[in-house]
Amino acid sequence: MSEPSGAVPAELSTELWPDVQPDAARRLMLAGVESFARRGFHATTTRDIAGRAGMSPAALYVHFPSKAALLFAISKYGHEQTLQLVERVVARPEPATAKMTALVEDFVAWHARRHTVARVVQYELQALPEAEYEEVGRLRRRIEQLVRELITEGVEAGEFDVPEPRTAARAVLSLGVDVARWYSDRMRKSPAALGREYAGLVLNMLGAKAG
Amino acid sequence: MSEPSGAVPAELSTELWPDVQPDAARRLMLAGVESFARRGFHATTTRDIAGRAGMSPAALYVHFPSKAALLFAISKYGHEQTLQLVERVVARPEPATAKMTALVEDFVAWHARRHTVARVVQYELQALPEAEYEEVGRLRRRIEQLVRELITEGVEAGEFDVPEPRTAARAVLSLGVDVARWYSDRMRKSPAALGREYAGLVLNMLGAKAG
Repeated sequence: MSEPSGAVPAELSTELWPDVQPDAARRLMLAGVESFARRGFHATTTRDIAGRAGMSPAALYVHFPSKAALLFAISKYGHEQTLQLVERVVARPEPATAKMTALVEDFVAWHARRHTVARVVQYELQALPEAEYEEVGRLRRRIEQLVRELITEGVEAGEFDVPEPRTAARAVLSLGVDVARWYSDRMRKSPAALGREYAGLVLNMLGAKAG
Repeated sequence: MSEPSGAVPAELSTELWPDVQPDAARRLMLAGVESFARRGFHATTTRDIAGRAGMSPAALYVHFPSKAALLFAISKYGHEQTLQLVERVVARPEPATAKMTALVEDFVAWHARRHTVARVVQYELQALPEAEYEEVGRLRRRIEQLVRELITEGVEAGEFDVPEPRTAARAVLSLGVDVARWYSDRMRKSPAALGREYAGLVLNMLGAKAG
């Protein structure tokens, strides 16, 4: 975002949720992200969100039965996209070092580029109703598991050297997630450049042999 | 916290803010942390906070002229404490590797132990009025600068090997800050144990020669 208000460039909506239809639902998700990022979930009303999307509250309910349902959609899509990103990378027929490099590059760039969405996804998690929280929790555990397995794969192949793959996996994901907290579009470093630097730091962290 | 409500054990209040007087101000800060963590700054009223501290709204205003002043006190103390922690460590007459080990151990344990406070301090930053935001910003930049200088010191002494101390400093701080997001008192790993593991990961990340 280019201002501390949490505004997201409108052209991002299609890029953020290419699979969401119709366009009105996408616009509401974008308005939800902007509103939640600015004031938090609890201080935001469905009227705020609908107004920001240029719709009536009644039009919002056509697509999302509640404010919580909208937060869930934002959160679920965010987690599904990062899970797909991780799944795509770990499936490659490459050594663990190459896969981890690609994973960190993509994961960090994703969180830098979509930092406002990522903040909402990460920080408003506790506002989800229990069943929805559980569903997102399953996606989160799957992401952690895949990263942990990739680290273990690297350790077993003699590429990595870490005492506890579980802690290391958490640290790798932390580095990426926390980018969303401090990254701003005013920074001169592009998401892709930041991803490459972080990949180097993570390989060091995992004790990867210089390649 | 032992429940997702954001409740902080009451006995923490003295430990969290040993320098804050009188006790009523400390109780209000603790009630503020609990309320902001649960519902966010904007959805919390001074009445909520006073009630949680067992006081009247009028009694709150004796100590803090506004809800924003209370958030500022919480945020300022949090940043001052971590700055002091960092200053104390970097002043030691030790090699950079030893100082970085102690810094990460302390910084990570601080964020794990005070995770609810740290979340409020980190995630509600944008709710601060501009002058107060700037003051906290100065503390944040000072913390980053000290970590960056320690990394540069280590690089110049041949202890560390990183291409960009600025990015590496951000990554070190990210690892610590993000602990507050996911750490919970239900975890079997103690803050101190987590700090030791993270120190090992950070030394690897900085290319520290095995010692």
